[in-house]
This record gives sequence, structure tokens and C-alpha cells, in this order.
Amino acid sequence: MSNEHIVKSFAQELQRLANLITQMGGVAEAQVEAAVQAVVRRDTTIATQVMQSDLRVDTYEREIDAETLRLLALRQPMASDLREIVSALKIAADLERIGDYAANIAKRSIALAQVQAVRPAAAIPRMGRMVQEIMKEVLDAFIERDVDKAVAARRRDEELDDLYTSLFREVLTYMMEDPRNITPCTHLLFIAKNLERIGDHATNIAETIHFLVVGQPLTAERQKGDESSYAVVIPEPMATSGE
Amino acid sequence: MSNEHIVKSFAQELQRLANLITQMGGVAEAQVEAAVQAVVRRDTTIATQVMQSDLRVDTYEREIDAETLRLLALRQPMASDLREIVSALKIAADLERIGDYAANIAKRSIALAQVQAVRPAAAIPRMGRMVQEIMKEVLDAFIERDVDKAVAARRRDEELDDLYTSLFREVLTYMMEDPRNITPCTHLLFIAKNLERIGDHATNIAETIHFLVVGQPLTAERQKGDESSYAVVIPEPMATSGE
Repeated sequence: MSNEHIVKSFAQELQRLANLITQMGGVAEAQVEAAVQAVVRRDTTIATQVMQSDLRVDTYEREIDAETLRLLALRQPMASDLREIVSALKIAADLERIGDYAANIAKRSIALAQVQAVRPAAAIPRMGRMVQEIMKEVLDAFIERDVDKAVAARRRDEELDDLYTSLFREVLTYMMEDPRNITPCTHLLFIAKNLERIGDHATNIAETIHFLVVGQPLTAERQKGDESSYAVVIPEPMATSGE
Repeated sequence: MSNEHIVKSFAQELQRLANLITQMGGVAEAQVEAAVQAVVRRDTTIATQVMQSDLRVDTYEREIDAETLRLLALRQPMASDLREIVSALKIAADLERIGDYAANIAKRSIALAQVQAVRPAAAIPRMGRMVQEIMKEVLDAFIERDVDKAVAARRRDEELDDLYTSLFREVLTYMMEDPRNITPCTHLLFIAKNLERIGDHATNIAETIHFLVVGQPLTAERQKGDESSYAVVIPEPMATSGE
């Protein structure tokens, strides 16, 4: 009887830990969405809110860290229970980074709102939507313990990388047209890079879900990151600086 | 007798885990140094080596992950032993990210080597040296379990952030002078940003060392990251495009 009680309460504790991750994921997802809105609407009020709310994401990570340590010490778990706890630790770290990137996007949107709008900014909502879809799919995969969904989300991240690489070239060309575009375009590049990095961290979470459910790391190495690192854009010799 | 044997062998296993972290740290440090050399010397051979060696860093992380899981399951550690193992997991994740950033710096140095050198590149070796010093101090702090050294390294990261922010403004100004500077300067900005991020991950490791030794997270929140996210540089209306 007493043994059954302990078993039941450990299952409850693990469920509580999973709920914390789900909540933290929801907050991180909302932060990303609001940060993209701050850029699109040039809204410094939303941006300030996102920057302030980053503390909430950090607090979740600290709570999850403390809870995993407590469960490891008290419950001395094995096999799948152990994977459950270690995965929580890893996913919380990725979500914390995602929150940081959202806060940085918000911070840059404030600089962007001070200068004139630039055309390549139009690609940001599209990248933002894609990132949010990937995050939603990964968080669903975590709740449903659905490995196929996690693997699918990971594949979608490749599309995001392609979108980023083409935006990178477009932005460079646009900077060359008019020096006034350089400051806004630079912030835009970093915003796009932050979105691409959020996709990478969502991919990490997908890999952790695979490990959590299957018990093995995902072996098929996927090239993470973007191809823009190789990009060289040469200005046209007689480029006019007109619009 | 048998009990003593188990205790001794667990201590050895923990020492082996710490050694793995130290080795991984050495490899990551060497990767950062070589990546900065690739930029400074415009040497694509070094760059290619760094990109290929990133697999070594990743392999270390996988080995450390597997070892921590094994120790958690078999040894069911408590208190400081548990912190030792969880810290190894966290530090390995930070070192893996540092390796990724070094590989990205190397990748961008290849694009940089294709175009003409730009003046702000001169700041990269200085940032590189500072990052290497911080990493060295943090790894020493890990080996010596020296909290004061870890905290000192964390403070030095603020200098690195300042250096990055001033480089950011200089690069933007330089881009405005001549459109041919835009491609190299953009890669330079990302290289500098990668160095700044490596500093942040070294800071994370310093915080993990504090937790490992003292048993409590570092409470004094330090503003991580750079102030360049707010930077707006306006081109002079009559800027000459000379040089």
C-alpha cells in the first residue's frame, strides 16, 4: 500500500514536471509571437513587454532545474523516468535560449522603429509564422510523446534555414542601394538570424523528444544553421542609389 | 571492504567525467583560437580544419551525456555528487555551443577571404584574445573548483560586451562609406557577435561552477549580451565615399 502510494506520487511529480515544461513552452511561444508583432507593427510598447516578460521564462527554467535536482536526489530514478527528468533539464535550457532570442528581437525592434521602414522587413512575418508553427509542432510532440511529429518539425527547420539564407542576400543587396538602409537592415539581419536560431533550438527539443521516447539519440545528423555564412554579394559597379 | 571499493570507484568515475569536461574544454578553446586565426590570416585551410573538427566537440558532448545518464542510473548520487553530474551535463552543452560558434566563425572567414580586407577587422584579434582569456580562466576555475576565479571571468565578459558594442558602431559607419564594404562588414559583424556569444556561454559555465561548488545558483543577475541591439547609426548627409 505504502509502496503503491510512493509510485503514484512519483508519477504525479513527473507529470507536474512535464506540465512545467509545457507551460514554459507556451510562454516562450507567446514571447516569440509578440516579438515578431513588435517588429511588424513597429510597436515599442509590445517590445518593452516582451523584454520584461523574459524574466518569467528564466524563472521557469530555475524552477525546472530545482525540481529535476530534487527528483534525481529523492527518487533516484532509472530508465524512462531518468530520461524524463534529464530531458526536462535539456528542454528547459533550450526554451530559455528561445526566450532570450525573443527578447533580443524585441530590443532590436525598438531601434528599427526609430528609422524608416525597409522593404526586406516584409519577410520577417513569414519567417515568424514558420518559427511559430515549428515551435507549436514541437510542443505538441512533447505533450503527445509523438516522435514522428518531432521528426517532422525538425525537417521543417530546413525550410526556415532556406528562407533565412535568401533573406540574407536580399538584405545585403538592399543595403548597397542606399546607406540609409544600413542601420535598419543590420538589425533586420540579426532579427532574422535570431528567428533562425529559435528554429535550431526547437530542433534540439525535437531531438530531445526522440531521445525521451525512443531512448536513443537521433543518429541522422542534419546540417544545422544557415548557408548565408558563405554568402558574398558584390555591389553592381554602376548601381544607382535611387529607389 | 566492498563498500569502500564502490565508493572509491565512484570517485574515480566522477574524476573521469571531470577529465572529459576538461578535455572537451581544451578542444573548444583550441577551436576558438584557430577560428580567430582563420579570420586574421584569411586562411581557408585553417577554416576548413575548424569546421571539420567541430565533430570532435559534438562527440565529446554525446560521450558526456551518455556517461552522466549512466552514472545517474547506476550510482543514484546525492548532494555534491549529483551536482557534479548535472553540472557536467550543463557545461558540455555550453561547450558544444561554443564549438558551433567557432565553426561558424571559420565558415564566415571563408567568405571574408574572397573579398577585400576591411579596417574594422583589426578589432577581431583583440576580441578573440579576450574571449580566449575568459575561456581559459573559466576552465581553470572548473579544474581548481575556484569560485572566485569563475566570478572574475564572468565580470570580464562585460568588457567583451563593451568591445563588441563599439565594434558594431564602427562597422556600421564603415559600411556607409562604401557599398563594397557591406558584404565583408556583415560577415565581420556576425563573427564579432559569435565571439560575444562565446563569452556568454563561458559566463554560463562560470555560473554552473558557482552552483557546483557552492550549491546555490548565482543570484546577482548580470545583464547578458550587448548594447548594440539598440544602436542606430545615421549616415552623414554629405558623407564622401572616399578611400
